[in-house]
Amino acid sequence: MTSPADTTDRTASSRRIAFLGPEGTFSEQALLTQSDYAAMEMVACRTIPDVLQAVSAGDVDIGFVPIENAIEGSVNVTLDSLIFDHDLMMQREVVINVVMCLLAPAGVSMRDIERIVSIPVATAQCRGFLGTHLPDVETFAANSTATAARAVADEGDGHSAAIATALAAKVHGLEVLAEDIEDHPENQTRFVALTREGIPAPTGHDKTSIVVFQKADVPGSLLTILQEFAARGINLTRLESRPTKRGLGDYCFIIDLEGHVGDELVADALRDLKSKNEDVLFLGSYGAAGDHGPAVRRDAEAAWRDANTWLDTLRGSIAR
Amino acid sequence: MTSPADTTDRTASSRRIAFLGPEGTFSEQALLTQSDYAAMEMVACRTIPDVLQAVSAGDVDIGFVPIENAIEGSVNVTLDSLIFDHDLMMQREVVINVVMCLLAPAGVSMRDIERIVSIPVATAQCRGFLGTHLPDVETFAANSTATAARAVADEGDGHSAAIATALAAKVHGLEVLAEDIEDHPENQTRFVALTREGIPAPTGHDKTSIVVFQKADVPGSLLTILQEFAARGINLTRLESRPTKRGLGDYCFIIDLEGHVGDELVADALRDLKSKNEDVLFLGSYGAAGDHGPAVRRDAEAAWRDANTWLDTLRGSIAR
Amino acid sequence: MTSPADTTDRTASSRRIAFLGPEGTFSEQALLTQSDYAAMEMVACRTIPDVLQAVSAGDVDIGFVPIENAIEGSVNVTLDSLIFDHDLMMQREVVINVVMCLLAPAGVSMRDIERIVSIPVATAQCRGFLGTHLPDVETFAANSTATAARAVADEGDGHSAAIATALAAKVHGLEVLAEDIEDHPENQTRFVALTREGIPAPTGHDKTSIVVFQKADVPGSLLTILQEFAARGINLTRLESRPTKRGLGDYCFIIDLEGHVGDELVADALRDLKSKNEDVLFLGSYGAAGDHGPAVRRDAEAAWRDANTWLDTLRGSIAR
Amino acid sequence: MTSPADTTDRTASSRRIAFLGPEGTFSEQALLTQSDYAAMEMVACRTIPDVLQAVSAGDVDIGFVPIENAIEGSVNVTLDSLIFDHDLMMQREVVINVVMCLLAPAGVSMRDIERIVSIPVATAQCRGFLGTHLPDVETFAANSTATAARAVADEGDGHSAAIATALAAKVHGLEVLAEDIEDHPENQTRFVALTREGIPAPTGHDKTSIVVFQKADVPGSLLTILQEFAARGINLTRLESRPTKRGLGDYCFIIDLEGHVGDELVADALRDLKSKNEDVLFLGSYGAAGDHGPAVRRDAEAAWRDANTWLDTLRGSIAR
Repeated sequence: MTSPADTTDRTASSRRIAFLGPEGTFSEQALLTQSDYAAMEMVACRTIPDVLQAVSAGDVDIGFVPIENAIEGSVNVTLDSLIFDHDLMMQREVVINVVMCLLAPAGVSMRDIERIVSIPVATAQCRGFLGTHLPDVETFAANSTATAARAVADEGDGHSAAIATALAAKVHGLEVLAEDIEDHPENQTRFVALTREGIPAPTGHDKTSIVVFQKADVPGSLLTILQEFAARGINLTRLESRPTKRGLGDYCFIIDLEGHVGDELVADALRDLKSKNEDVLFLGSYGAAGDHGPAVRRDAEAAWRDANTWLDTLRGSIAR
Repeated sequence: MTSPADTTDRTASSRRIAFLGPEGTFSEQALLTQSDYAAMEMVACRTIPDVLQAVSAGDVDIGFVPIENAIEGSVNVTLDSLIFDHDLMMQREVVINVVMCLLAPAGVSMRDIERIVSIPVATAQCRGFLGTHLPDVETFAANSTATAARAVADEGDGHSAAIATALAAKVHGLEVLAEDIEDHPENQTRFVALTREGIPAPTGHDKTSIVVFQKADVPGSLLTILQEFAARGINLTRLESRPTKRGLGDYCFIIDLEGHVGDELVADALRDLKSKNEDVLFLGSYGAAGDHGPAVRRDAEAAWRDANTWLDTLRGSIAR
Repeated sequence: MTSPADTTDRTASSRRIAFLGPEGTFSEQALLTQSDYAAMEMVACRTIPDVLQAVSAGDVDIGFVPIENAIEGSVNVTLDSLIFDHDLMMQREVVINVVMCLLAPAGVSMRDIERIVSIPVATAQCRGFLGTHLPDVETFAANSTATAARAVADEGDGHSAAIATALAAKVHGLEVLAEDIEDHPENQTRFVALTREGIPAPTGHDKTSIVVFQKADVPGSLLTILQEFAARGINLTRLESRPTKRGLGDYCFIIDLEGHVGDELVADALRDLKSKNEDVLFLGSYGAAGDHGPAVRRDAEAAWRDANTWLDTLRGSIAR
Repeated sequence: MTSPADTTDRTASSRRIAFLGPEGTFSEQALLTQSDYAAMEMVACRTIPDVLQAVSAGDVDIGFVPIENAIEGSVNVTLDSLIFDHDLMMQREVVINVVMCLLAPAGVSMRDIERIVSIPVATAQCRGFLGTHLPDVETFAANSTATAARAVADEGDGHSAAIATALAAKVHGLEVLAEDIEDHPENQTRFVALTREGIPAPTGHDKTSIVVFQKADVPGSLLTILQEFAARGINLTRLESRPTKRGLGDYCFIIDLEGHVGDELVADALRDLKSKNEDVLFLGSYGAAGDHGPAVRRDAEAAWRDANTWLDTLRGSIAR
């Protein structure tokens, strides 16, 4: 693993991937589930914007960041950076279960703990466990679960524990006092891999992400947008609104849909959407992490091609 | 003018057009407004199916028939023949004002009239005039206004008058006793010219006619059909339902829309419609008789082309 | 049976029903399937407008007329009279199979027949039978199948036959030479019973008929109309367009829907429709002749009532 | 001002309002713009959940919290607390411009500053100013802008400044070194006042907030939801998705719409929505802070009432 300062030393032969560090974060844990990414030179960045900036600037080939959590919702800084600051393409999505662990140095037991360190979001997600087993502890904020683990490892006062990943325990030489301590054990975080350009070939099981900017002078514009997809039987897996930073009530919509821009039906929907809304931002088509039904889509694709052939024949008979 | 029996004598150099006869009908009157058609060899047919059959069989080049009247609605026999019996293409629409005249032989005055002959539809449309000026006359049915005029000319009993066209007066040597006697002076009839194949080039001011068969197992299918056009800002000038003759409650829809199949937006709508409903029958794209707004459409066409270019670029970057 | 002239002699104790005569028509045949109507004093009228006029004027209690045929489509004169001329309420619908018979005086066999008399519509519907069994006969037009039967009975030239109902054979003392001779044996005609006012109580299996006038200045108004019903899961069994007689391209829509105005969901849809389109004409709610699914509707009704209770509670807490 | 500990001492005669403290926050600044609220006993709470809990528990009469920022988007903790944890009613919305100031103890000038303290969100929003005027300072995180001001006042090291409100300068005896230093000077935050129950009377200029839970088994449910409002011409001022914490891809939608539940059209839309989606959470109808058009709505309300009267008359004629 190298620090961001190393990025200029990079050789052509090795590909580099930046992620939200430090070592031991959920981001690293998610990244390591992808064997091709894990084989690259991994560059830990301090913030999400730093990751995206490293990709934009060409310092790394790929950026890997969280984009959505099942409990917390969107990672707004990721969305806003993609929408407003960078021109990047999603290449892949990775979804992992969020498993929170209570970590402490060897020799520290539950009874000794007086202080809990973690990012507030993680602490909040373990409220149930803490209320039952550690009702009187004080909580302290850290910038990431990994930072919390490092802080607990460094301090070694015998009374502190971190809420962090199992990976962080390994990285910082801590013990796992309790595992799976989050209130919602089904919690998941979704990560995306980003590059400067290029759309991966369809896998037959893809998602496409776009951003559509509401036309301020057209009421019901979201309705119109949704109708384009509904009319084609294209399923939306996510719809998120974000302020455009132009004033209260001015939104854009981040939409994830099933299918690839290489599919005729998806292309058809995007073409119509674009022809009515100049501001459509394409964020990528990429292999989907979850399951969805390819069979129906294949029928619809075939019907579209038949219809296109019919139309081509008709138009071929127009007098010139 | 030639009778249907002459159709086999036709020479290659002359084009032939069949119309709903006999001489002196509104159909002939409408046909004569088109100088190119009026220059062809005109073939009067006895019924609308006869006209369409003459085109299908290749006995004539063009068929000319009424399709819609502002008071009476669709001419069902024309619609049903086009939908179920023949495979013809609309080439042009012609709209004329329906002006009914009271015709009688020279020397017959209003006071002498005891009998009115016409097609019942025409008699019904002059109810107001008859009630005021000829309250006690008896009415007799004829097969067409032109037949009525001929009958009155032939009988010459001095007490009969026909309700028919001014053209019929000329053809049969009758006098026009009263003009414009219909209750709805704004009444119009729309005619279409039909050929075996071929779509005329766009004029920039066109209509397209299609028939869409409702999918019995999909409720709300008409809604879906209309949404395709509404979503593209394509105006419908006519929507008519007709039974499919498969049982009560089984309909198809005849739709006239503004635009030409050569327009990208119209093509786009038809492609999507066809891909969702196998049964779309294309009846033709042809110059429109009325006025509609080409400017808006031109903007929408440009936006569609821009969107298509954007999409092509995107798809060009898909990995192979 | 009495003639229209008798209508002033009517006593309070007997109810009178007018139908499209003369005796032996399909209308009478349909009427006789309803035992309560068959027990009334039956008044044969010469035309459909005469039937409706008799009801409007109070000469009869009920009018009984055809409104739709599975092959021919709407009976336009019925629709137009209901839409533009009279203010009547549908009370019941009756659907019968259309069975055409070939009728001739006793002693006349198929070989003797040289002339066929009937209404042109009926003759057209037996084209297949005539082409096979009587290819060389001449066809003559009558005003109704019943008139045709009477004419054949009166003439007695030994060479004429009528296409009419089995009932007409009985009424006019003719023999049935061939039965079920129509090309589409599944053909049906739908009749409606009309009164000056009153809505029958819901049967749990009802239809509602309305007319909605398109607002000329609002494109896509039909779409909006259909959405009201689609949004509430209300099935439309029929949608028919008719010209409003105000010029080509100006239509109204006759809509039959499943349900009764006494149902909350139907009332809700009509209220919203009316609040957006001033011109909604209510033609009636009445027991349906066919089958449709009451169970789903009952759930939807219950959901509506629950929602209404929730809303009433909410609104009850508004400060005054 | 009293601390939360005081809440049990409350007398019946005084009303109490809780807000997100400590003293000097934007929340307090917004609250003080409302003279009736400013006259109440103000209770500063440490977190947004604490404010809402104080209302739910009856410790205070009203809670006052931020719900949306034009740059940052929704305040998720407020939304989630309202959706999942408490059953409260919105009473009023307050929108204020977000004006960031650079605060330091008297005697400290721009040149002296080496450290900036604030909440990270505020620091981020002043990136432009800091880059230009204080490019080399270090930034430190605080829990709120008010806490940052207090910390700077307490430390008094001569090298620290806080980014906070002008109110915080007054509260903590600091000087305003620079005003309006945020990158987006048009930034605004929207606050809501919450009570345990009750809906304020309509002002003629109202908003209604609801939460609709997507039915997982019904694709296109958001489309259906939006159509209810579009069909009634009800404008939506905000649509926000939030995870339901039941897994990735399971959302609910927070919708703000123009109008009051006391309006017939709004009631009508909510009734239909509720009858199709059991899970509709009503958050309140309250006076709107911004401008919107009452005239159009009044016409629509009148049309609805006319339609309702028409329908009542019709239903009054149903036989029993």
